[in-house]
Amino acid sequence: MGGTVVEVTEVGLRDGLQAEPRIVPTADKIAVFDALVAAGLRRFEVSSFVSPRAVPQLADAADVLAGIARRPDLTLACLVPNEKGAERAIAAKVDEMVTFVSASESHNRTNVNRPIADSLRGFGEVARMAAAHDIVVHGAVATAFGCPFEGDVAPARVVEIVGRMAAIGIRGVTLGDTTGMATPPIVRAVCGAIRDAHPEIAVTLHFHNTRGIGLVNVMAGLDAGITRFESSVGGLGGCPFAPGATGNISTEDLVYLLDETGHETGIDLAAMLPIARRMEQLVGHPLPGQLMKAGPRLALYPLDAVRRAVG
Amino acid sequence: MGGTVVEVTEVGLRDGLQAEPRIVPTADKIAVFDALVAAGLRRFEVSSFVSPRAVPQLADAADVLAGIARRPDLTLACLVPNEKGAERAIAAKVDEMVTFVSASESHNRTNVNRPIADSLRGFGEVARMAAAHDIVVHGAVATAFGCPFEGDVAPARVVEIVGRMAAIGIRGVTLGDTTGMATPPIVRAVCGAIRDAHPEIAVTLHFHNTRGIGLVNVMAGLDAGITRFESSVGGLGGCPFAPGATGNISTEDLVYLLDETGHETGIDLAAMLPIARRMEQLVGHPLPGQLMKAGPRLALYPLDAVRRAVG
Repeated sequence: MGGTVVEVTEVGLRDGLQAEPRIVPTADKIAVFDALVAAGLRRFEVSSFVSPRAVPQLADAADVLAGIARRPDLTLACLVPNEKGAERAIAAKVDEMVTFVSASESHNRTNVNRPIADSLRGFGEVARMAAAHDIVVHGAVATAFGCPFEGDVAPARVVEIVGRMAAIGIRGVTLGDTTGMATPPIVRAVCGAIRDAHPEIAVTLHFHNTRGIGLVNVMAGLDAGITRFESSVGGLGGCPFAPGATGNISTEDLVYLLDETGHETGIDLAAMLPIARRMEQLVGHPLPGQLMKAGPRLALYPLDAVRRAVG
Repeated sequence: MGGTVVEVTEVGLRDGLQAEPRIVPTADKIAVFDALVAAGLRRFEVSSFVSPRAVPQLADAADVLAGIARRPDLTLACLVPNEKGAERAIAAKVDEMVTFVSASESHNRTNVNRPIADSLRGFGEVARMAAAHDIVVHGAVATAFGCPFEGDVAPARVVEIVGRMAAIGIRGVTLGDTTGMATPPIVRAVCGAIRDAHPEIAVTLHFHNTRGIGLVNVMAGLDAGITRFESSVGGLGGCPFAPGATGNISTEDLVYLLDETGHETGIDLAAMLPIARRMEQLVGHPLPGQLMKAGPRLALYPLDAVRRAVG
């Protein structure tokens, strides 16, 4: 009797590293990638073909893609903001291009300096370029559960954007909780609205733990029938809009929760912990993942290491 | 249409402070207590009448109880390990004495240096002393969801201990997830077993966020019909058995989740955040609470404070 299979996409090398003060060397990124594959991860956001000046942390996107071992069972996705990025992604032989737009106008203008309508128009050309090279296009909707400037985002707004993506042939869409505003009722409302309007779309959920309930939202997503989630090793990443707050949910904490609730990910939790600790060394500051500190649930302590504790 | 009422017990002043390297002055404890009452908290674990040599952080238990303003709508509970502690608690005019025992033999011996059977025998005399002064006795079961030395704890073991507590007249029992081993299936199993065997017992759940799923376990507890939870301001506290791991779930993160899922606590989230930040100053190191860093969900950012962010 197997549990539900859940697909975990590792986004640490992209979303996780993009805001880190320290630039991680290409060889270390590749070593982390290889270790994650050995631990059982199969789907990755590897990097981003944005301006190297704007995001120097990911300026080595082509080198990372050239340096990692390709396997037919891996999916390597990269962020592509425009046609120029698409050209670079095609040259780097990505498996998927991720086009992205915010669900709120002010966040999109802040993020990519143009209105949502212009972002959506750009997707069409990127999709044509991708199709010519048999590359899948994946859509990502930022601020899908709330906007740090506008507040609540109507589910109908997210449905409309997903519909525009569906119209150009996109079949997989990630809903991003960019600044950690998702709650279980909002997750239910947004996922339900998309399922009703676009049952053909495969939805992936991308939660941040900014307000401590990232994994609670995962459970709400599972209850809503979603079986695809994004996370980052160690909980790497963060949002510059919420200083001091953590970023993405941690891959190993997510895998722990999924393991313990009868889901199957194919990921070896024990193998994840040293990778998270290695990532902590690479970025040079503590990461928020909990399993990497506490260890697996049934890793028992020897009695002679004991000190007093109540509660 | 009101939501379910949930009772939150603040344990920061006891469970939170007992393992802190820095001893917080009595006057500061009282100021934090007063602020928590102003924020809407009504039920507290104020301190512990254990040996001042063993836990110097709480040596001022009597002074704290003498210094805080009493109100008929507040419940002030204190930990009482034995008859000597009960005498001190009676003198300090506590509302409730909390007697405690571990569900696992090795943890109980480590914690209080005696077998479970001896701990249980001691409860009877404490209960008689309390009854003579119209003081309620509350029970607490540590390692109720797993033991760091023995691993899984059988729900039947917890039921047996709760039954022994019920037999001496205890009507409220806290189940403690001492080292953060609870998972949703374990929460369902333990809560279900106690409900079936002792439906008269009011169960309170005390989760640690050691492995990142403390609030997921709260949702599992709510699903199991439990409406009483313990937490600490800022997520103060921790377990010496899991270095680097966080301790209690944070009161303000808990209140945020309860607010957002339609539950009523009577606690003002906005008023909690400065108290958590004050506690961080008092203990002199960062606390794991997330809301105290990120702020409320709909506290919007001004657009001119913006930097680039994707995802």
